[in-house]
Amino acid sequence: MERIDHDLAFMLRFENVAWFENGKVKILDRRIYPMEVKYVECETHEEVVKAIQDMVTQSGGPYLAATMGMVLAAYETKVKNLNNSETKEFMKKAADKIANARPTTSSRMRKIVDNALSTISESDWENKDDLIGKFREFAISEVSNRYKNIEKMGDIIAEKVPNNGTIMTQCFAETVVGMICRKLKEKGKDTVKFITPETRPYLQGARLTASVIKDMGFDVHVITDNMPGYILKNKKVDLFTSASDMITKDGHVINKVGTFQIAVLCHYHGIPYFVTGNPSEVHESIDDIIIEERDENDVLSHLGKKVTLEGVRAYYPAFDITPPHLVSGVVTNKGMYSPYNLSEYFKD
Amino acid sequence: MERIDHDLAFMLRFENVAWFENGKVKILDRRIYPMEVKYVECETHEEVVKAIQDMVTQSGGPYLAATMGMVLAAYETKVKNLNNSETKEFMKKAADKIANARPTTSSRMRKIVDNALSTISESDWENKDDLIGKFREFAISEVSNRYKNIEKMGDIIAEKVPNNGTIMTQCFAETVVGMICRKLKEKGKDTVKFITPETRPYLQGARLTASVIKDMGFDVHVITDNMPGYILKNKKVDLFTSASDMITKDGHVINKVGTFQIAVLCHYHGIPYFVTGNPSEVHESIDDIIIEERDENDVLSHLGKKVTLEGVRAYYPAFDITPPHLVSGVVTNKGMYSPYNLSEYFKD
Repeated sequence: MERIDHDLAFMLRFENVAWFENGKVKILDRRIYPMEVKYVECETHEEVVKAIQDMVTQSGGPYLAATMGMVLAAYETKVKNLNNSETKEFMKKAADKIANARPTTSSRMRKIVDNALSTISESDWENKDDLIGKFREFAISEVSNRYKNIEKMGDIIAEKVPNNGTIMTQCFAETVVGMICRKLKEKGKDTVKFITPETRPYLQGARLTASVIKDMGFDVHVITDNMPGYILKNKKVDLFTSASDMITKDGHVINKVGTFQIAVLCHYHGIPYFVTGNPSEVHESIDDIIIEERDENDVLSHLGKKVTLEGVRAYYPAFDITPPHLVSGVVTNKGMYSPYNLSEYFKD
Repeated sequence: MERIDHDLAFMLRFENVAWFENGKVKILDRRIYPMEVKYVECETHEEVVKAIQDMVTQSGGPYLAATMGMVLAAYETKVKNLNNSETKEFMKKAADKIANARPTTSSRMRKIVDNALSTISESDWENKDDLIGKFREFAISEVSNRYKNIEKMGDIIAEKVPNNGTIMTQCFAETVVGMICRKLKEKGKDTVKFITPETRPYLQGARLTASVIKDMGFDVHVITDNMPGYILKNKKVDLFTSASDMITKDGHVINKVGTFQIAVLCHYHGIPYFVTGNPSEVHESIDDIIIEERDENDVLSHLGKKVTLEGVRAYYPAFDITPPHLVSGVVTNKGMYSPYNLSEYFKD
């Protein structure tokens, strides 16, 4: 069977996201791509957790890193020659550590690692090579299903863009970007243009999103994060789309900081904002969400070089919240929903 | 008499803006400050024009660079041993070149260099040292008057901030920032806090505004340009202020790109936006304004290092336009005006 990532951009092919091989998980270091193509090699699942925490990979990357981290943990039980009950305990602890790598994604991570564990039947714990194989099978099936679901989202976004139209993105929507491009090609909309805000401090827009779009053969222009307001109107953007770190059941979008303000600017200009992602099964409302604050030195420096005078401080909220009245549609694997009607998503 | 810049931040003292001495104009290189404290030394007025074009200095800096450039031009006529009519011709041409260094500021630059020329009477052309002295006198008087006018603006902004309040800035409002701080101190509002968006691609907010505020003894936090929307609400900002490259008579503000979108976000959150600057005497409406587009490589790189894949393009509009309905008040040297009532400014 043809693998679902076969025609996607370099960054989106499984081996270049996170991959278990020869007792290690290789994760493409998205912090320095495309200036450098380097992989972080993890020899323990704790190193995978650390890589996720250190933002070596982000967006959809951590999910494949997590399931590949489970494969690595299974491999560790073989190396350590653990017995059945020790192995179960080890894998349960590994799952906990991986699930809690980052607060914003913990509920979805929890579900994935629990699903991985649930594929293991009592008899599987015996043979360690089988165990590794089972976790590996799960990892590939999980990412393939995810890509398949995302392909449906990409189809909806591609459908909404007019021929010769212009799409603005935010941060790095990862596989969604690749799938939008694949579907645009299928629909003969090869002349659609993309505009990607650079997304400081990690520049995921400039480095990652723009690279994927370019790799997929489309025209792409980067702008700095202070330009969307002007550019949305000036370059006649037709729609704005972003992925989401989480969509609460009451229609709030948590995503990379900057999403909210572009949504406000789209509302001002009368441009629709379509968010991709399935609503959270866990989070009923925005009230129980904590927004991560990160190391202020990331804001005070560029490519690792500090640019400010001694004593100048910074704020670094990693995410922001876009309220439902600024969201034109929530694009899920089951179709598009109003942000005010997400309970429908769970009915089918 | 005490010089008006005596207690201001390092960057705002005349010698650290642009200064004629020993046959050269020294201009602080604001592109690399505060990481490095270096001056570009210009030996001809054409080099001053080039320095202005190359953004060695910006905001208010080019105006002092321009008048000091005229001093240098006068010095050049001495070195070249030009006769009276040659000198007049040379100075007229120098004034033209300086006035047109940057399209956005050409009308104000034109006025300043014409004023410099108008201080020269027929008898002054004879003695070259007197001529240099006259132009130097003009330069210092012009910048001192400008600082005095700006001090009045700073007083109005400082008055509008509550005790313990928070101000958001944009790009580098230069002397205005120093004068706001001076006036806050005079009013006993020492605990006012500042939040400065970094202002890509040149980072004037992070490097220059934050440095001036820190130098003046106030608390300052830098944010990336995708954060104002979230931070305005989250950190309870009381007012937003920016300077202006131009304010048209019909109340439109042309300023560093990003100003418009912060103004939209302030409007959304119910936070006032006060722009500082006197309305243009030349530009009746926004219709005859051209927005400069600059080199896309500035957007594609950070501190000179390219961050994007080959073939990725960029847009770089240097300025944007904020319409009058997003401007809460135009703070001039004569007081605050409604953006819809700027003709009043010219009546007194």
